[in-house]
Amino acid sequence: MNIRGKRYRTLWELPDASGIEVIDQRHLPHRFVTTILRTPEEIAIAIRDMWVRGAPLIGAVAAYGLAFAVRRGDDPRAAAAKLLATRPTAVNLHWALNFVLNATVDPLDAARRVVADELERSRLIGEHGMKLILEIANREAASGKVVNILTHCNAGWLACVDYGTATAPIYAAHEAGIPVHVWVDETRPRNQGASLTAYELGEHGVPHTVIADNAGGHLMQQGRVDLVIVGADRVAANGDTANKIGTYLKALAAHDTRVPFYVALPTSTIDWSLPDGSAIPIEERDPDEVRFIDGLGPNGPVKVQLVPETSPALNPAFDVTPARLITGFITENGLGPLR
Amino acid sequence: MNIRGKRYRTLWELPDASGIEVIDQRHLPHRFVTTILRTPEEIAIAIRDMWVRGAPLIGAVAAYGLAFAVRRGDDPRAAAAKLLATRPTAVNLHWALNFVLNATVDPLDAARRVVADELERSRLIGEHGMKLILEIANREAASGKVVNILTHCNAGWLACVDYGTATAPIYAAHEAGIPVHVWVDETRPRNQGASLTAYELGEHGVPHTVIADNAGGHLMQQGRVDLVIVGADRVAANGDTANKIGTYLKALAAHDTRVPFYVALPTSTIDWSLPDGSAIPIEERDPDEVRFIDGLGPNGPVKVQLVPETSPALNPAFDVTPARLITGFITENGLGPLR
Repeated sequence: MNIRGKRYRTLWELPDASGIEVIDQRHLPHRFVTTILRTPEEIAIAIRDMWVRGAPLIGAVAAYGLAFAVRRGDDPRAAAAKLLATRPTAVNLHWALNFVLNATVDPLDAARRVVADELERSRLIGEHGMKLILEIANREAASGKVVNILTHCNAGWLACVDYGTATAPIYAAHEAGIPVHVWVDETRPRNQGASLTAYELGEHGVPHTVIADNAGGHLMQQGRVDLVIVGADRVAANGDTANKIGTYLKALAAHDTRVPFYVALPTSTIDWSLPDGSAIPIEERDPDEVRFIDGLGPNGPVKVQLVPETSPALNPAFDVTPARLITGFITENGLGPLR
Repeated sequence: MNIRGKRYRTLWELPDASGIEVIDQRHLPHRFVTTILRTPEEIAIAIRDMWVRGAPLIGAVAAYGLAFAVRRGDDPRAAAAKLLATRPTAVNLHWALNFVLNATVDPLDAARRVVADELERSRLIGEHGMKLILEIANREAASGKVVNILTHCNAGWLACVDYGTATAPIYAAHEAGIPVHVWVDETRPRNQGASLTAYELGEHGVPHTVIADNAGGHLMQQGRVDLVIVGADRVAANGDTANKIGTYLKALAAHDTRVPFYVALPTSTIDWSLPDGSAIPIEERDPDEVRFIDGLGPNGPVKVQLVPETSPALNPAFDVTPARLITGFITENGLGPLR
């Protein structure tokens, strides 16, 4: 999608295929920085330290990591294991590494295929999900009302190759001229909503408003949310959905206020090997991500401390939303139950 | 309660009764600052700009504001109206100003009475609420397990004169030697949990852990929360409870995971004139409280920007938790339904 009016993807290959260039998302929204990654080690760091993040993007970048490892003669399985260890929750990492390992073509071509397929899945998610938004817009057409969509974290194009998952239907609706407005959950502790979703929507010209994570339930009670769309990091076979911490709370509120709650995901995010969500590993990250926050100070980017010096913190990065709270799924295959 | 080992209340009268001294809570947790307020105007600013906050404390400070206005010859009703306009949601402000207006004693003595009564109500809330904690501790005694209590925002002694509302049972249990641990919701956007609740628990020696607001539901799903206690800003006659934005989400999660959810409040917080919560006015505050955050940077306290320059924000300060999600109330009169 667009940044400063120019069309971007989250990653692209260097002309000589010696590496990939990615948007280093740690600096957003205050600075737009890209960086070149040429080795599996650089790629592992970029994933682990969240220069790139988002389940589909992690898979795509890791696929290149494995391809680069194989090209320089590393053992493919050992290289894949190292890349897999960088983030435990998103299953796309698994999926993409297995795709490259099992491919009968050159690993680099397999990585390219992962990227191209992920892009096409996002595009199709947008096409299918737009029907939901169009339906609400048609219902409300008499009043000329904007369709208000709430999203949590960043399941935007910055989390994918392009278009996004949760945002793909929003961009598609926006392109089609359907009036949409997005409530952007800040998404503490890492603020992916405030710093990434707000940024990408703003750069692409989609109306949006940032809210504290605490505010979404109240807005639903007030009838100010027509639809919730979130992404997913891993979905079990029964539809239980691991996504950014706090998703469960929004699903409860949507259920309580009868607001449709949809999960948008490429099928590469489904872990058919897990019967339900209880076995999904939940990553626990550094407590200092809660104790400190990054922002733009008077003299540039700065990290500030939020809690008393001696107060500890806990930082679980995901939660599991039970399938019973989910109205439906939006995948590249269509709208409805998981398939 | 204690700060650096010394016993404090949130406000105290100057020896010559020319003003009151309060803890200026804007500087916590990084700096402990007190300030003297001598006029109704100073007191109105201190309430409106949240140097002091918390429903019971607002009432107590406003009572002094009205007493000082009357003492210098202002019209009592006009002075009360000005103080009432500072914050719209907390009903204690109403309650305390009416108490002083209708008192047959000197207004200053009436204000002192508000403070003394609020203190006693907090103490009794602690006594009654401790029974809940003791019950859980006794049930878990065989395993030697700590009682894990989750709280939202600051309904601590810093929100009252002393003891707190939600924290009063926690301090009482801690004093009685019952092992407690508190999950402290950060409470965006103003971070009263991370900056005030964590501070006061830490200074008093109560074990606690700060979590993002998003994390509480997940911890309840994992069985790591035994009890939720929150405060209230206004409670309608049917038990619908206005409290800090995000409370509703925690009540939903507690209900979904069968964790007892209690609201602790002095009866001065009940608005018997409202049949239900739909008529409680919800304060909307400056969006910049969402767009920026205060923290401690490398060179001292600093405000940093979190969202893109052009992204708007919305900042509703409270939400209403329906009575059906509330297990019971803890007031100075006891435990159970509202009375």
